[in-house]
Amino acid sequence: MRLNLVRIIFTCFCFSLPAFSFCQNATTLNLMPVPEKVIVKTGAFRLDSSFVISITGDPGKRIYPYATRMLQRMGNRTTLLFSQAYLSPQTKTEKPTCIMHCDSPGKVEMNMDESYQLNISSGLILLNSATDIGALRGMETLLQLLTCDSLGYYFPCVDISDKPRFPWRGLLIDVCRHFYPVDMIKKNIDAMASVKMNVLHLHLSEDQGFRIESKKFPKLQQLGSNGSYYSQEQIKDIIQYADERGIRVVPEFDMPGHTSAWFVGHPELASLPGPYEIGTTFGVFDASMDPSKKYTFKFLAAFIKEMAKLFPDEYFHIGGDENNGKNWDNSPAVQEFMKKKGIKTNDELQKYFNKKILKIITANKKKMMGWDEIFTPGLPKNVVIQSWRGKDYMKGAALQGYQTILSSGYYIDLSKTAREHYLNDPLPDTMKIEEDAKKYILGGEATMWSELTTWENVDSRIWPRTAAIAERLWSPSAVKDVEDMYRRLEIVSIQLEELGITHISNREMMMRRLTGSDSIEALKTFISAVSPVKGYRRHSFRKYTTSTPLTRTVDIAVPDEPAVVRFDQCVDKYLQSKEDSAGSQIILQLMTWKKNNAELQKLIKKIPALNEIDSVSADLSLVAGIGIDCMDYFEKDQKPGESWLTQQTALLKEIKKPRAEIDIAIIPSIEKMLEALKESK
Amino acid sequence: MRLNLVRIIFTCFCFSLPAFSFCQNATTLNLMPVPEKVIVKTGAFRLDSSFVISITGDPGKRIYPYATRMLQRMGNRTTLLFSQAYLSPQTKTEKPTCIMHCDSPGKVEMNMDESYQLNISSGLILLNSATDIGALRGMETLLQLLTCDSLGYYFPCVDISDKPRFPWRGLLIDVCRHFYPVDMIKKNIDAMASVKMNVLHLHLSEDQGFRIESKKFPKLQQLGSNGSYYSQEQIKDIIQYADERGIRVVPEFDMPGHTSAWFVGHPELASLPGPYEIGTTFGVFDASMDPSKKYTFKFLAAFIKEMAKLFPDEYFHIGGDENNGKNWDNSPAVQEFMKKKGIKTNDELQKYFNKKILKIITANKKKMMGWDEIFTPGLPKNVVIQSWRGKDYMKGAALQGYQTILSSGYYIDLSKTAREHYLNDPLPDTMKIEEDAKKYILGGEATMWSELTTWENVDSRIWPRTAAIAERLWSPSAVKDVEDMYRRLEIVSIQLEELGITHISNREMMMRRLTGSDSIEALKTFISAVSPVKGYRRHSFRKYTTSTPLTRTVDIAVPDEPAVVRFDQCVDKYLQSKEDSAGSQIILQLMTWKKNNAELQKLIKKIPALNEIDSVSADLSLVAGIGIDCMDYFEKDQKPGESWLTQQTALLKEIKKPRAEIDIAIIPSIEKMLEALKESK
Repeated sequence: MRLNLVRIIFTCFCFSLPAFSFCQNATTLNLMPVPEKVIVKTGAFRLDSSFVISITGDPGKRIYPYATRMLQRMGNRTTLLFSQAYLSPQTKTEKPTCIMHCDSPGKVEMNMDESYQLNISSGLILLNSATDIGALRGMETLLQLLTCDSLGYYFPCVDISDKPRFPWRGLLIDVCRHFYPVDMIKKNIDAMASVKMNVLHLHLSEDQGFRIESKKFPKLQQLGSNGSYYSQEQIKDIIQYADERGIRVVPEFDMPGHTSAWFVGHPELASLPGPYEIGTTFGVFDASMDPSKKYTFKFLAAFIKEMAKLFPDEYFHIGGDENNGKNWDNSPAVQEFMKKKGIKTNDELQKYFNKKILKIITANKKKMMGWDEIFTPGLPKNVVIQSWRGKDYMKGAALQGYQTILSSGYYIDLSKTAREHYLNDPLPDTMKIEEDAKKYILGGEATMWSELTTWENVDSRIWPRTAAIAERLWSPSAVKDVEDMYRRLEIVSIQLEELGITHISNREMMMRRLTGSDSIEALKTFISAVSPVKGYRRHSFRKYTTSTPLTRTVDIAVPDEPAVVRFDQCVDKYLQSKEDSAGSQIILQLMTWKKNNAELQKLIKKIPALNEIDSVSADLSLVAGIGIDCMDYFEKDQKPGESWLTQQTALLKEIKKPRAEIDIAIIPSIEKMLEALKESK
Repeated sequence: MRLNLVRIIFTCFCFSLPAFSFCQNATTLNLMPVPEKVIVKTGAFRLDSSFVISITGDPGKRIYPYATRMLQRMGNRTTLLFSQAYLSPQTKTEKPTCIMHCDSPGKVEMNMDESYQLNISSGLILLNSATDIGALRGMETLLQLLTCDSLGYYFPCVDISDKPRFPWRGLLIDVCRHFYPVDMIKKNIDAMASVKMNVLHLHLSEDQGFRIESKKFPKLQQLGSNGSYYSQEQIKDIIQYADERGIRVVPEFDMPGHTSAWFVGHPELASLPGPYEIGTTFGVFDASMDPSKKYTFKFLAAFIKEMAKLFPDEYFHIGGDENNGKNWDNSPAVQEFMKKKGIKTNDELQKYFNKKILKIITANKKKMMGWDEIFTPGLPKNVVIQSWRGKDYMKGAALQGYQTILSSGYYIDLSKTAREHYLNDPLPDTMKIEEDAKKYILGGEATMWSELTTWENVDSRIWPRTAAIAERLWSPSAVKDVEDMYRRLEIVSIQLEELGITHISNREMMMRRLTGSDSIEALKTFISAVSPVKGYRRHSFRKYTTSTPLTRTVDIAVPDEPAVVRFDQCVDKYLQSKEDSAGSQIILQLMTWKKNNAELQKLIKKIPALNEIDSVSADLSLVAGIGIDCMDYFEKDQKPGESWLTQQTALLKEIKKPRAEIDIAIIPSIEKMLEALKESK
């Protein structure tokens, strides 16, 4: 009966997020990452145009433009015009309402001090930090605390003491498979800073492109790219921009494999004569540098010297992954060389190569780092291992006294959910590892590999999920309430937009292009229930190239559709407690999805590029229908017949087979419903 | 009775735009600007992955990357992967389905040949042009012709012969009052090319900022800006980017007024000693260069030489507007100088200044241009006048044999409608002007002054309206069907997004920030019925500064809300013919606006930054209610009483007084309804 009542509601239901929702969860507020210690007090600091910041101590230069930008962001959100528009070392203030004190300017480097204390009382905000970098982190916390009620904008009174759990909290951006303009990189740096990440790892050379200007060897970028690469001026600009936000920039030049693009201009570096072309497909290529020639190392010494000078960070990444050795096998010179040197396997040869490179890198006063594959017996202890193949590799490295960072489990290109990434802890309490070895685990890095992303949708692949990874690496290990993470993720997601991140706005743009109109409601509703297939499965549907249009429905879909997240949460809640409000939300959402097919089919018939989702849309309707039937049984407190249950389960199994490279993301929750009915009495 | 029937429709009505709508209007198709000659034939060229372009003749370099980008845009819209992914001079093709032939490479300069012929038949596309620049224009036409039906994507068969009416079709971007990153400028260059504009006029110095690097006088940008300026590398990059799209870049350095920012670093150039600060407010400042010192011209000679070298275009803009002369009056040295030289007025002194500058510019082999104010008796004939104060100034200049371009009527910062700009013809058939003088009217320029725009909303101020101006300047004067212009503008608007223009997507982003959530429907519906107040009125509401947040409702509102445009059209149609479908569209839209207030008020109560629209939202509901009442009378064929009519008219007059710097944009149409009722029998 209750069900029928709900069913007659005609208006379209919207799961609505309270505006600037200031949650009751005192320990997490709307903060992401959650600080180490938070004490919520009563009262509020009311924000008005008289807000005045005073900066004291010896903070250096970085803090002034950062504080100015903070004022702008506060102004932009509240539309308040503060009497203090910008800050400089010359700024004199009387009666400040916010005092930032830093003991000394920090250096943006490994193990920089990022700690801060933030004390908000009704009349005064105090932000104390050892370095200005701590102050930057504290300002982001302050911005996340900004909220409002009918009286106006305010900060809740709190005492926060905060510092990161891991010193290395990175985002890798692969600018090779697809290239991104400087402006986009800068916006992502701002976004990283907003969730307290501190390393931008630029993957700069690949089979598909050499993306940085070498002045010594200009053919590298001139012939090794389609014209899209960063000039050294632009790289300096990016590094400077990142430094101003407390973020390190670590360059990666993948070698000896993943090097086709180098060889277009410099085939003499390769194990086989070539000629080489810029890669247009994806996967592991055979191209590999020739370790048998002295010339190779002479060239690399000159190149690395040039790049080591350009990038001030202490760490220098040489990749080292997925060198399949085929071209070594086929090169008489390499084979001859191995025989001469008594090198028996390609692994050993790569070890030889790495040793030579390590010498060059060390000579340039840098620390070498590379992917798992370079971690071979006898590797000098000052090399850092980035684990991508599994946490065990990371643990193994740490146990042997190698510094290591985790990327396995943080592959954000694989369309996994924020939940999965969030629960992937580099050092979970359950991990059996000697206390002494823990210090070698430096943190982790989300990796944005770019086979299937363009400037249009890459933000939606990085954000907001990466904020969950940022929290994993900053906050205490005990912070792992997934539901609360998702609650805060929605708020952070909207705040990311003020920095120019297009993870929400470009999706609707892409829908408008696909449909050729601004009537995208039906497509939007469809997409709100699906996600791209996970892992590397998209490549099994078609042979992707660097020219394949990435403008289809699957390219708009994301792994963490807010509607799906909320739906899943409602289902869990409902199955636990049969809670009324969860029940009606479930039904209304299912009705929206069920009836959407009729509308969407009209569009599909008109738009050839939508034909591929024809049956998926019909199936979404079917799935939603099964969900509604399940709810019917629940509400009537009935158990369906075995045959019905078997039939629906089989149907869902069939529907689960992806088409158009898309999964219907709500199926697991519907399966849970069927399961619950099966087990009901 | 018909009315009541309509009223009970519960679902929310959407004015929907047909996808890739391929209109029946044979002479304009979906093309903007409309070509000089179009013959629509029967049949279609069906687009599939076998599409292959062959480029013949002697086209130079520019065409290959442009054609590659065209393929990408076609691929992105259709999701087709063409076998031909990119084009280069080395590309060899067999059996091309599209042949582009250019006689010779063009030079991007004044009077470049932009003509082309495009012939589409079912088996072959032929694009012929004298220069590659014509081919670029033709490719944009081809892209605009791309459409689809249930069978797939296609181009309609047409014969098009096209060339521009005016050689100067520009967009001025003021990068001083607010600064825009390189990437945004580039995207706007792409957008300009898509509607066949050919001049980007960069306004580079102002009271509020000096926005370009001078290597000779680095204090100009270092002290004259907040750090936001274009490096010379970046400027070269912009010029190169524009050249590749057939667009000239004309620099403007405004002088002798509008120069405060110069004087922060170089007070010795000023008429009064200073010190000077970067302007933070807007309007006419007193700062002015000192024409009495030789040093001033020595400095400017060196500076102009540097800039003349950097900008390859033949034209060099010196501004020359709004020099109020106050600082000249107050400078003993200037007064002394005037006495000595026998210069009686400030106008004469500015003429003297201009003459000296002209000499410098001419020495650098450039043509000087400036705003109206430099057009004084005795001005050498090789100076170009840009008219901003009225068409009469333009006409006056042309009659005296001066080349001139029109900007009066194209001030896109003033929130006027596309209709107004569209109907502003530099050379209307009705203008009385000697045949001989016509050739001096070179064209026009839309001017994007940036007092009230930031990177977030500037695209929504430029686009899509500027496309209507582009059409005015390219298409034959007879092309002036406003309704058809608006029809095509909606389609072009969505196509602009593929180039990265954020005129649609950033508006929703701004709404999400204002409300702190993704539940923006009520705010969106409200904004769909309003527009910013027109002209300079916003400055009468508050004293704007360069720091004032531009994130309010008025900053999201635009002058040409599609919903308002469509509503106005329906009202016109209905009042003419009482057409049924127009009637029901009107009523449904009015009902949506009327009932929106209840929902929006909930949000307004929660969000302090929305408080200002409280009464406007209530009044929108009232206005919509009046409209519904009017429709009631029309449908019942009744005439309301005089007192009711008087009352409603008075009410609307009252409501017309703007609040929150917003106009309710549908009032004129409601007034039309009342007027029609008043005159009915």
